[in-house]
Amino acid sequence: MAVSDWRIDGEAMCPYRLVLEHVTSRWGVLVLIRLLEGPHRFSELRRAIGRVSEKMLTQTLQTLERDGLVHRDAKPVIPPRVDYSLTELGREAAEQVRALAGWTERRMAEVERARRAYDEARA
Amino acid sequence: MAVSDWRIDGEAMCPYRLVLEHVTSRWGVLVLIRLLEGPHRFSELRRAIGRVSEKMLTQTLQTLERDGLVHRDAKPVIPPRVDYSLTELGREAAEQVRALAGWTERRMAEVERARRAYDEARA
Repeated sequence: MAVSDWRIDGEAMCPYRLVLEHVTSRWGVLVLIRLLEGPHRFSELRRAIGRVSEKMLTQTLQTLERDGLVHRDAKPVIPPRVDYSLTELGREAAEQVRALAGWTERRMAEVERARRAYDEARA
Repeated sequence: MAVSDWRIDGEAMCPYRLVLEHVTSRWGVLVLIRLLEGPHRFSELRRAIGRVSEKMLTQTLQTLERDGLVHRDAKPVIPPRVDYSLTELGREAAEQVRALAGWTERRMAEVERARRAYDEARA
């Protein structure tokens, strides 16, 4: 099936859609981009990403781990130490997501110009 | 500001985030990918995309038009004819979104394998 054939089938969207939602989710984007720099502990990720709650970051990491994009490495030391890193699959996703996020950043001035023109034409 | 510095500032996320949400939204993805093939009338888009409601497709197109990604061309003919096409900015966004969507499609088997392993380890 080609991407252009994606369709809604009743309430259930095709499964690709869910993966796309995970990697482009608010926190998913930020986690993936941050992990491109290397492995992070939970507390490092939380600090790096900003105002994400512990619960949301945990959920985001679990979702990405379950999709096979993030590797969770719990070291049997005291105190416990858990490192998160990208899998090969996760690195591929992260690089594309970073490219798309970077594009929105580079083109933001044009988007804002378009919005002003659109709003003025309707004021 | 680098993408890796994206942060939540109170409730307001940085503006890039919103553009990313528009182009990766459920219908945004499908509209952008479809318009890469060329201009479409509203009814053609609706048929091509599947079970999108008229209201949701209208909203999606308005959002993408306001962002400067989609051009709306209303021809002064009887009966009225409206064509939607990608702007240059929209083509850039659409190509990246198609690449990311295509990636989720190519890698879906690996994602599903990872999910099964994750679930089995916790069953």
